[in-house]
Amino acid sequence: MRVTKGHGTFNDFVLVDDPDGELSLDAQHVRGLADRRGGLGGDGVIRVVRTCSAGVDAPADAPEWFMDYRNADGSIAEMCGNGVRVFAAYLDRAGRAPEGIFPIWTRSGVRTVEILERPGAEGPGAWQVRVGMGPARIGDTPRTLELAGRRLPTTDVDMGNPHAVAILPAEIDLDGIDLERRPELAPFPESGVNIELVSLRGPRHAALRVHERGVGETLSCGTGTVAAAVVAARSVGEEGGAPWRMDVPGGTLTVGWTEDGQTTLSGPAELIAEVTLLA
Amino acid sequence: MRVTKGHGTFNDFVLVDDPDGELSLDAQHVRGLADRRGGLGGDGVIRVVRTCSAGVDAPADAPEWFMDYRNADGSIAEMCGNGVRVFAAYLDRAGRAPEGIFPIWTRSGVRTVEILERPGAEGPGAWQVRVGMGPARIGDTPRTLELAGRRLPTTDVDMGNPHAVAILPAEIDLDGIDLERRPELAPFPESGVNIELVSLRGPRHAALRVHERGVGETLSCGTGTVAAAVVAARSVGEEGGAPWRMDVPGGTLTVGWTEDGQTTLSGPAELIAEVTLLA
Repeated sequence: MRVTKGHGTFNDFVLVDDPDGELSLDAQHVRGLADRRGGLGGDGVIRVVRTCSAGVDAPADAPEWFMDYRNADGSIAEMCGNGVRVFAAYLDRAGRAPEGIFPIWTRSGVRTVEILERPGAEGPGAWQVRVGMGPARIGDTPRTLELAGRRLPTTDVDMGNPHAVAILPAEIDLDGIDLERRPELAPFPESGVNIELVSLRGPRHAALRVHERGVGETLSCGTGTVAAAVVAARSVGEEGGAPWRMDVPGGTLTVGWTEDGQTTLSGPAELIAEVTLLA
Repeated sequence: MRVTKGHGTFNDFVLVDDPDGELSLDAQHVRGLADRRGGLGGDGVIRVVRTCSAGVDAPADAPEWFMDYRNADGSIAEMCGNGVRVFAAYLDRAGRAPEGIFPIWTRSGVRTVEILERPGAEGPGAWQVRVGMGPARIGDTPRTLELAGRRLPTTDVDMGNPHAVAILPAEIDLDGIDLERRPELAPFPESGVNIELVSLRGPRHAALRVHERGVGETLSCGTGTVAAAVVAARSVGEEGGAPWRMDVPGGTLTVGWTEDGQTTLSGPAELIAEVTLLA
């Protein structure tokens, strides 16, 4: 079995090549691949498969390639904002990506991707990929986050998954916050929520840290970065304008808006290794 | 660059094939390989190189193959009890291991290894390898470990690296102990120490957990397992007799004694994947 390892802002994935849907990838197999010591290691496993061969519900005119995303624990997930970039880089390297903007199929429906840059011929380097992330739906439930002895308001953002975003006052140091445990949020949504802590850094520039639902703090969260940028831009009256630079612990991402108000996320995707599994 | 990933009781390694010593593997390179998200991931990196081409001090009659072991942080280490088994499995798979017992060269001198079992032809499976671990030198400094509100005596064991071993009374549950922080040990050795907590399970059978110096709790520690078995066997008057089964969080190991009182460690070694690095 041949697989590839890649990462986007250090959110890492094992990509399994299965163009014609010949593999049955059960939860145990996924856990084995994602295991960081006994396997190859990754936050998720992505099967690269033609939509028509993937055994999933899809319209007849669905895009050719399906991102079959699984979490490291073997469960199925709808989408992964960093994973989409790595998936697009993989298709591009395999000669399967058309020029320009092209659609891919995910369990959240169509996502549109665009290869902005390719790695140089001289080796190490990353793809830069822009992904259409759909609309950011702002909620109106007032919530309060307890942080560093303060109570901060948060804004709900639905990116297909739920987020609660807090803009930190300048006197709270983002880097100094202890995120080992989930900060107290009230009322706490029954089905859980991703929590983003955002510090404004300058014009159209912010930094954030994310506590992911069911996971804990991560180095990068694609949907969380978009949610954070939307709330940050709103807080200074700039939503929908020029792109924002968003620094996450794993690197730098860019959030933009299309003319029809949809969000985009741009950032690096690296393919690290081609792997032949021995066991 | 082609590398292999392997593990022994989930202590995992990146093996770099460099028989003729043509690679310069600096600390930054090692850190990159060992990085669990941006690289392949491992507790250590092992360069597989002929002793005569390794650029290290060695006697003229030193064994043919040198285990050039580096920690994940890029620093050089003398030896790794689990790493030696994986190194031997690698040599065996590459057709470089003679039949029977054979010596390898490490920064701690000669280690003797023996392939006890090879994986079956039907795929997944492990090598079983026995490694000569040299003498276990018992110290006589009295120390006390604070654990679960109790004060327990420990025994110093020098395996080339320092260990303090505590045999737990039956009423302390090994699995329930919080080892996130290093247990309090007094007097604490200036250069640090590995701490082993051991529960006797039955005749020549014990379980242990290890807090490794400078690392924290690990799933397995080769020298720690030998140190623990020696103290466990002593505690019931059986040192130097039949082998002991030692359960570690990452699997099962066997500690034995040669006729001249040296220790041996036997256990699994798995080669997981052959890897071509892309970046």
